[in-house]
Amino acid sequence: MMNVEKLREIVGNDWVITKREQMERYLVDETAPGVRPKPADNVVVVKPANTSEIARILKLANIDKTPVFVRGGGTGLCGGAVPTLDGIVLSMERLDKIEEVDKDNLMIVAEAGVTLESMLKAVEEAGLFFPPHPGDEGAQVGGLVACNAGGTRAVKYGVIRNYVKGLEAVLPTGEIINLGGKLLKNNQGLDLMHLLIHSEGILGVITKVILRLYPRVASSGTLVISYDNRHDAIDSVPKILQSGVIPLAIEYVERDEIETSARYLNMKWPATKGKAYLMVILTGANDDEVYSQGEQVSDICEQCNAVDILIAETGEEQSRILKMRSELYSSMKEQYADILDVTVPPASVGVFMDRVDEIAKRFNTNIPNYGHAADGNLHSHLLADLQDKGIVRQVKREIYQEALKLGGVITGEHGIGVIRIPDLDLCPDGKMWELMRGIKRLFDPNNILNPGVGLLG
Amino acid sequence: MMNVEKLREIVGNDWVITKREQMERYLVDETAPGVRPKPADNVVVVKPANTSEIARILKLANIDKTPVFVRGGGTGLCGGAVPTLDGIVLSMERLDKIEEVDKDNLMIVAEAGVTLESMLKAVEEAGLFFPPHPGDEGAQVGGLVACNAGGTRAVKYGVIRNYVKGLEAVLPTGEIINLGGKLLKNNQGLDLMHLLIHSEGILGVITKVILRLYPRVASSGTLVISYDNRHDAIDSVPKILQSGVIPLAIEYVERDEIETSARYLNMKWPATKGKAYLMVILTGANDDEVYSQGEQVSDICEQCNAVDILIAETGEEQSRILKMRSELYSSMKEQYADILDVTVPPASVGVFMDRVDEIAKRFNTNIPNYGHAADGNLHSHLLADLQDKGIVRQVKREIYQEALKLGGVITGEHGIGVIRIPDLDLCPDGKMWELMRGIKRLFDPNNILNPGVGLLG
Repeated sequence: MMNVEKLREIVGNDWVITKREQMERYLVDETAPGVRPKPADNVVVVKPANTSEIARILKLANIDKTPVFVRGGGTGLCGGAVPTLDGIVLSMERLDKIEEVDKDNLMIVAEAGVTLESMLKAVEEAGLFFPPHPGDEGAQVGGLVACNAGGTRAVKYGVIRNYVKGLEAVLPTGEIINLGGKLLKNNQGLDLMHLLIHSEGILGVITKVILRLYPRVASSGTLVISYDNRHDAIDSVPKILQSGVIPLAIEYVERDEIETSARYLNMKWPATKGKAYLMVILTGANDDEVYSQGEQVSDICEQCNAVDILIAETGEEQSRILKMRSELYSSMKEQYADILDVTVPPASVGVFMDRVDEIAKRFNTNIPNYGHAADGNLHSHLLADLQDKGIVRQVKREIYQEALKLGGVITGEHGIGVIRIPDLDLCPDGKMWELMRGIKRLFDPNNILNPGVGLLG
Repeated sequence: MMNVEKLREIVGNDWVITKREQMERYLVDETAPGVRPKPADNVVVVKPANTSEIARILKLANIDKTPVFVRGGGTGLCGGAVPTLDGIVLSMERLDKIEEVDKDNLMIVAEAGVTLESMLKAVEEAGLFFPPHPGDEGAQVGGLVACNAGGTRAVKYGVIRNYVKGLEAVLPTGEIINLGGKLLKNNQGLDLMHLLIHSEGILGVITKVILRLYPRVASSGTLVISYDNRHDAIDSVPKILQSGVIPLAIEYVERDEIETSARYLNMKWPATKGKAYLMVILTGANDDEVYSQGEQVSDICEQCNAVDILIAETGEEQSRILKMRSELYSSMKEQYADILDVTVPPASVGVFMDRVDEIAKRFNTNIPNYGHAADGNLHSHLLADLQDKGIVRQVKREIYQEALKLGGVITGEHGIGVIRIPDLDLCPDGKMWELMRGIKRLFDPNNILNPGVGLLG
């Protein structure tokens, strides 16, 4: 088992925590408390300074067969960072250097422990732009890649996968590999880089990332479109996308939830009418372009019975609106038993919400939904009362089955982590899971890296 | 070895070719003749009608340990479709049905044998748009995915990988798997779909694809910008990208080559001045947007010493220019010993071309270059005289080494196939290749599928 002395030798005395009372924050993530896994009893937190220390730690753990749980910002929503077995929590926090913002290649090179917040700041200071915004800015870039984060603003340029051009990673057996580079095209062999993206930490420890940047958008605007009826809101979405306008984001929220988030942030949700909202972020080369896109979107939404349309033009107004959306989850976390992440074909979002309503009715509860409407990615909330009645899992599985019937998946962006393993039996392609397990064995023969996470239930 | 009778039972008598004289076109691909691998002597061509016949063929081949070479449109440039061992050529040509153009989800569902040409036609008839244009329209969509085709028009939305949302494939052991779907976000397990994309047919036979479509662009324009000096042309590229204009394509060509292609097509290259050209395709929501982008690009290029700027606005003019670019390769194929595909960080294209020039000088030859300037993907041409002197490989390896020094790869879009295997020793990360071989063994324990292609040199 664990050799704490050797760990101290590798990283230095100050960077190993063995006292339980000093490591509480390393034992949890942002998963809803009702479903969050319990941490194991004997855990050591190790904070390496660099890739070569990580390589030495993994070599050691691989020999000792000690479980290693990689920890980024701890903002995950499916228990993937919780050390569920006795072992090592490998915190990436000291790999926090931005090596380069390369304006000529429009790329950033950052160590895995750099937070989304620091990265966005560096990118902005360079006069550039990183389009996606997966939510909590305490997330670290290594985690964004390991979990293929999505979030708002994936409509125009896609999820994090699309931005990743290069990775450095340490394999569970201790070797350091470099995949990709500052490259926009790369067909040199099977694409192990794309295999590591969304490997949820089970195939290797991502230590450095190269991400694609874009020029700063010259102009942007955020529309808040109010509807009395959620279906009118949802029906507007494919019509917007078919019109040729490609917004950065199209988010769907409902009044109760967004006002909860607003109160949590001491802000005020700007819309007074309606109870279902689309939040549409538009970008363009100049104000005229954004204005003309805004006109087009407004026309479409009015035809779909929108009752009010507000336009935020200043940067400050726009970030306030985005902030209320981004903090929705945090503001509500304590009231909910579980928060789902199903994804269906975008045009099926309306049907899916109807089916969730039917399930809610049948179980005599209310299941609020919000999410990334244009991506087909909905976060249904299961209220705490279901937990009291002991039927969280039953309700969840019925929702999952409806999503699967529509050609969907049980997780679009949050991942499997620990909490979704018991329900993978609903996704029955045995051969697929067998191949995934084979790949895991190939990369990690002693099953030391995030054991129990992802597919290895 | 091969059981021809059983193959006939599976696909029917008419769909098995055993006579050599009837199969000549199945024994080659579009690789430059000087480096194209030789086909084996005992080959059977089989033309299944559907996925379940393919599953039966692979089960049979897996038991008999018969090599199977998957064949799409035969437009590959690295010998990957050539049957280099006695075995079966599995032609996908009869899987040619477009199952659905789904306007609401902006997706197309097509069998793997549908040609790019048919797909583009169906998409256009539906009033939609598939942005990438990887060249030869005889390519089949399964091949586009298996080879992660790039081509012109990857600047704005990326290579084929970015468009693939779902796949059906048959594993070498005969199981049919379905990956992804009409989904824009999918984090349900390790992403085997992204592993199959650019697997060059060694992990499975792709039988059906779901690709993302876009609304038709309302307006587009193609600029042909002439320079006397190639470096001025190349220096313009990062400046265009930094300006905030994101063209659909930025191509670099030189006079001799593009005029050869024009002659081959009985067309006329429109630029009379200069000898190095950028071809920039702009798209926008209306003519004003394209016009204003065109102005911005023109200003930048004039500052970089452009000597002439032509603007093609009609669809016909634009497709003529694209056609001359797309057929560059075919028009020159016979004159060249080998055509390279290195990719470097985009900002290093100028330096890379300088180094190629130095190599050319040293070997007393001329090495023309053209390619996807904004992607850092250059196609250097090695003239037939190098073959006569027996130094093709030596020159090629020097060019590869320069690309690798700049953080590049030896193939950005064409792939490894057969012809690049002997030079993989230049890319020395042994652990990476070991993992790839392990994945191959996992998917294809008897090594029947495209043996000798890709990483298994």
